[in-house]
Amino acid sequence: MPFDYIISPQSIEQESFRQIRELTNLDGLSREQQQVVMRIVHSVGIPEVAEQVRFSANACESGLAALAANAPILCDVEMVKQGVTKRMIAQPPLCYLNDPRTVARAKDSGETRSMAALHYWQEKLTGSVVIIGNAPTALFRLLEMIEQGAPKPALIIGMPVGFVGAAESKQALWDVHEQLGIECITLLGRMGGSAVSAATCNALLRCLKGEWY
Amino acid sequence: MPFDYIISPQSIEQESFRQIRELTNLDGLSREQQQVVMRIVHSVGIPEVAEQVRFSANACESGLAALAANAPILCDVEMVKQGVTKRMIAQPPLCYLNDPRTVARAKDSGETRSMAALHYWQEKLTGSVVIIGNAPTALFRLLEMIEQGAPKPALIIGMPVGFVGAAESKQALWDVHEQLGIECITLLGRMGGSAVSAATCNALLRCLKGEWY
Repeated sequence: MPFDYIISPQSIEQESFRQIRELTNLDGLSREQQQVVMRIVHSVGIPEVAEQVRFSANACESGLAALAANAPILCDVEMVKQGVTKRMIAQPPLCYLNDPRTVARAKDSGETRSMAALHYWQEKLTGSVVIIGNAPTALFRLLEMIEQGAPKPALIIGMPVGFVGAAESKQALWDVHEQLGIECITLLGRMGGSAVSAATCNALLRCLKGEWY
Repeated sequence: MPFDYIISPQSIEQESFRQIRELTNLDGLSREQQQVVMRIVHSVGIPEVAEQVRFSANACESGLAALAANAPILCDVEMVKQGVTKRMIAQPPLCYLNDPRTVARAKDSGETRSMAALHYWQEKLTGSVVIIGNAPTALFRLLEMIEQGAPKPALIIGMPVGFVGAAESKQALWDVHEQLGIECITLLGRMGGSAVSAATCNALLRCLKGEWY
């Protein structure tokens, strides 16, 4: 039983994005937004997911500028951190989920560790790129912090996945972003996750490096 | 704008799985298979994905026995490794993707790093649990190795995602598993990924620990 498959990584990537461009509705999107949407589709395998992506007015511009300036990248979980393409960033993304202080804090308060970890984001928030791919509670808490006067990230990539709070947290982000004056990219509905949120950041990093598909 | 959301991690998990059980077709599945399918649904946010999951005849039994015996867990990418629940395993999962030998080997051969990494799986394969969540080429290569006489894992969780080779590699796994005498869990079609494949392993680990939903 010989298996017939492409083994060249360059050919695989080129052919993937050729198919994705053919299958995905990219109407009305800027060049950068197209790259983001295509990489989101690439990470989930579903072209129709493009319809659920939302960009605030200057999301890509603000995110690109922050990434170009090596702004901190704040991640809710380790899988997101792991998903950001290492060769494209000058310093590792930050994640405080497994910090012993976070664990203790969550135990004391009865809240999720994902929420407790945001306490340690406070001093890094200004001009940062935030990637929330897992925890609706982290996204809700971030919105509360900003509403209460916390510094604003340059871009919030808000894409928790799941059944309890995920769709609601993303809808909340989308509903209040103008009022709070924040730039965001989100994926409405239940879908989301570490891979898709990291892929969104990776798409912007590739734009900066001149890798267009 | 007060946000109304559940902050207790236990309540979130219980309510998530209550909803998933209600929304997902679990007819004809064993108790263990139900746990796996529900955790797959949990990780992607789409109940309908249950229809695409396939179990070989003794996949759960073989995987559970291997995990109970602390067999090696072999992962194609770091995100999968990161996704396996640490508190439930005695030794860290293995991933050779960023091993300098793998990088050199892939450069020499022009194949993907994911394929090249499998060279270092050979001596760990016997009775292992393999998790492939990203690279179709890794899954194809593994099937070739087993066909050529490499030792057999106790369970292959084969769930690459994407447009080039992903669906084909999973169909190949499903088509040849009986002939090769291997146990597997797969998710047919384009969907898959690090989170869903790690979630499959985590579901089995939770069965072992007596955490049922």
